Order: sequence, then structure tokens, then C-alpha cells
Amino acid sequence: MVMPQALLEKSVGRRVSLLLKDGRILEGRLEGSDEYMNMVLEETTETATDGEARRLGSVILRGSNVVSISVC
Amino acid sequence: MVMPQALLEKSVGRRVSLLLKDGRILEGRLEGSDEYMNMVLEETTETATDGEARRLGSVILRGSNVVSISVC
Amino acid sequence: MVMPQALLEKSVGRRVSLLLKDGRILEGRLEGSDEYMNMVLEETTETATDGEARRLGSVILRGSNVVSISVC
Amino acid sequence: MVMPQALLEKSVGRRVSLLLKDGRILEGRLEGSDEYMNMVLEETTETATDGEARRLGSVILRGSNVVSISVC
Amino acid sequence: MVMPQALLEKSVGRRVSLLLKDGRILEGRLEGSDEYMNMVLEETTETATDGEARRLGSVILRGSNVVSISVC
Amino acid sequence: MVMPQALLEKSVGRRVSLLLKDGRILEGRLEGSDEYMNMVLEETTETATDGEARRLGSVILRGSNVVSISVC
Amino acid sequence: MVMPQALLEKSVGRRVSLLLKDGRILEGRLEGSDEYMNMVLEETTETATDGEARRLGSVILRGSNVVSISVC
Repeated sequence: MVMPQALLEKSVGRRVSLLLKDGRILEGRLEGSDEYMNMVLEETTETATDGEARRLGSVILRGSNVVSISVC
Repeated sequence: MVMPQALLEKSVGRRVSLLLKDGRILEGRLEGSDEYMNMVLEETTETATDGEARRLGSVILRGSNVVSISVC
Repeated sequence: MVMPQALLEKSVGRRVSLLLKDGRILEGRLEGSDEYMNMVLEETTETATDGEARRLGSVILRGSNVVSISVC
Repeated sequence: MVMPQALLEKSVGRRVSLLLKDGRILEGRLEGSDEYMNMVLEETTETATDGEARRLGSVILRGSNVVSISVC
Repeated sequence: MVMPQALLEKSVGRRVSLLLKDGRILEGRLEGSDEYMNMVLEETTETATDGEARRLGSVILRGSNVVSISVC
Repeated sequence: MVMPQALLEKSVGRRVSLLLKDGRILEGRLEGSDEYMNMVLEETTETATDGEARRLGSVILRGSNVVSISVC
Repeated sequence: MVMPQALLEKSVGRRVSLLLKDGRILEGRLEGSDEYMNMVLEETTETATDGEARRLGSVILRGSNVVSISVC
């Protein structure tokens, strides 16, 4: 059995792809997370629903906006 | 009587199909879950409302975005 | 006086019809529920807003997506 | 001064009309309620925003979907 | 300094106009309120966004649907 | 370092401009606030997204509907 | 490992770019934040989804409306 929080903590240092509630996708290297699944990403790229991408660098993300986290 | 959390825990190792609030469907093997119904899926396929599917592999899913969980 | 949770617990084993927030209707036999009105249904049929139905079998439903529960 | 919960409890046995967040109107005889304003209605009629009505009989309603409760 | 809850309690017996999240406006005499800003109104008139008004009489209103309360 | 609640309390007596979730803008003199960022405004003007303005006088505003508060 | 709240506190005095749930972008100098990720910004510029910008000066922002925070 793999607990969600445990997998998230184990994924620090790896690249993750986050699907947000508004359809955006954020890809970056996971630097840390907390109990609310707030996360810190580095070298982040945001892709909007129309496919437009922008580089965001260092990002704090609120967990309440996250639908799913794919570990690459 | 079958409690929801008990059925979820008992379903670890089985394939589940999740309906998300935004209409997406995620199918994968349930690896674990917590008290908020956050889940870990492996060998996950996401199907968007337009039928487009993508392979996601290992996914952490936030329970707050889940409408229903079908146990296959 | 009939308390909502008491009626829900008393309805285990009966068929219920659930109206979800997104307009879907789920019909099935109630197997159990918890304090958040999460429910387990068996022999479930989901009817989308366009009338399309699909069989879901065993379903865990999150109470936060439920508008109303009709006891048949 | 009339407290909301007190009026709700005093209204058991009376007909009420509930406006839901999605615009539906539920009318029925209030059988009970709890601290979250979850309610039990009997002899319930649901009227959709397009005016279409359906009989629902015994209904458990989640308070979080209710906008207002008119006591008839 | 005027605290929101204090002003609400002081407004009992006065007419108030409530703007709801869905754009409706409810006007009535405030009879009482609780810590969640649930309210009881008497002699209530509801005005929909299209300007259509209906008389509702005695109304229990859930605070979570209220945007703002104007004290007349 | 300036804490959000501290700045809000310090702004009592000043004019503020509130952006609400539904796009409305409320401008008025801040009379008080509480821990949920519920606020009391006096001499309030509401401007809808279509630019239409109306005078509201004394207003209790629920903090959960507020996006941002500009201190003038 | 970098915790989200720790990075936020460390970013006081730096310029940040906030993506809000409604698509607006707020850019300003972070003056402070609290446990709910409410923030105080100075020299703030708001850019709407249609690209229209307005100067807001000193702003209190509710964390519940924030999707992500880019540290510049």
C-alpha cells in the first residue's frame, strides 16, 4: 500500500506534471510539499489549455487547485 | 453494511475507474488511499470528455476532485 | 422528527436515486454510508444529463457531490 | 429575535419550499433537519429551472446545496 | 470600529437587502442571524437577475450564499 | 514584514476598494473587519462588471467573496 | 526540501507574480503573508485576462483565490 502523502514526499527531486482545476498543466522539479499538498516547483513550465507555454521558474502552488500529480 | 472507506481500502490492488468533477475519467490500479480519499494509482489512463486518452503512469489524485469510484 | 443521517442509515439495502451536483443521476442499492454522506452503492446505473446510461456496478460516492437522495 | 436553526426545527411538519444552488426548487413536508441544515422531506416535488416537475417522495437533502428555505 | 457580526445583530428588526452569489437580491425584515451569517427574514421579496420578483414571506437563508448585506 | 490582518485592521477609517469573486467592485470606508475578513463598509458604491454603479450605504461583506482589498 | 510556507516567508521583499483563480495576474513586491497564504503586496499591477492592466498600490490578497505564486 502506497499512501498519497508518502509518495509525494518520496518524489522530491523528481519531475512532476500537475493538472490544475482550470485545465492548466504545470511541469517542474518538485522541491517540497506540505500537508495541504501545497508544493514548491523549480524550472517550471506552465501550459495553458490552448497549448501556450510560459516559463515560471520557482513556483509555490496551492494544493487546493491541483487535480492530479503525475510522477515522471 | 459496507462503509465507503472500508471498501476503498479493500480495493487496493484492484483496477478502479474514477469520475472527476471536470468530467475526466481516470482508470488505474489503486495503490493506496488516505482519509481524504486522496489516492495513488499506477498504470493510469486519463480520458478527457472529448474521448482523448493519455497514459499517466504513477498518479497522486486529490480526493476533493473525485465524484465517484467504480471498483472493477 | 426524522434526522437525515438516521434515514440514510435506515435505507441500507434499499434502492436510492442520487442527484449529483453536475446533474447526473445514480441509481443503485445502498450498501452503506458514513458521517460525510459518502455512500457505497451496488448494481448502480448512472444517467448523464443527456439521458445516456451506463452500468457501474460497485460504486463509492463522495457525499460532497450529492444534492439529494430519494429513497425508493 | 428568531434564530435560523430554531425556526427550521419549529417548521417540522410544515410544507417548505427550498431553492437549491442549481436553481431547482424542492417543495415538500419537512420531517427533520440537522446542524448542517441537511433535511428530510416527504411528499416532495422537484421543479427544474425549465419548469419540468417530478415527484420524488421521501428525500434526504444536503444543506450545502440549499440557498434559502421558505416556510409556507 | 464596527464588527460585522455586531452590526448584523444590531440590525434585527430593520429591513436589509441581500445580494446572493447567484445574483438574486432578497429584501426583507431581518428577524435573526447566527454565527455563520445564516439569517431569518420576514416579508421577503426575491428579485431574480432578470428582474422578476416573487414574494417569499418567511425565509431561512444560508449565509454561505450571501455576498453582501445592505442595511436600509 | 506586514501581516494581512494587521494591515486590514490598520486600514479602518480609510477608503478601500474590494474586488469580489463575481467581478463586482465595492468601494467604501472600512469600518471594521473580523478574523474571516468579513468587513463593514460605509458610504459604499458597488460597480458591476458592466460598469453600472449603485449606492449601498452601510454594507456587511462576507470575506469569502473577496479576492483582493486595495487600500486607497 | 523546500516547504511552501518557508519559501513564501523567505520571499518577503521580492517581486512575485500571482496567478488568481479567475485568470488575473497580480504582480507586486511581497510585504508579508500568513498561514492561509493571504498576502500583502506593494506597488501592485493587476492584469486582467484581456490584457488590461491597472495599478493597485497596496493590496491585501486572500490566499484562497491564488493558484500559484512565481518568485521573480
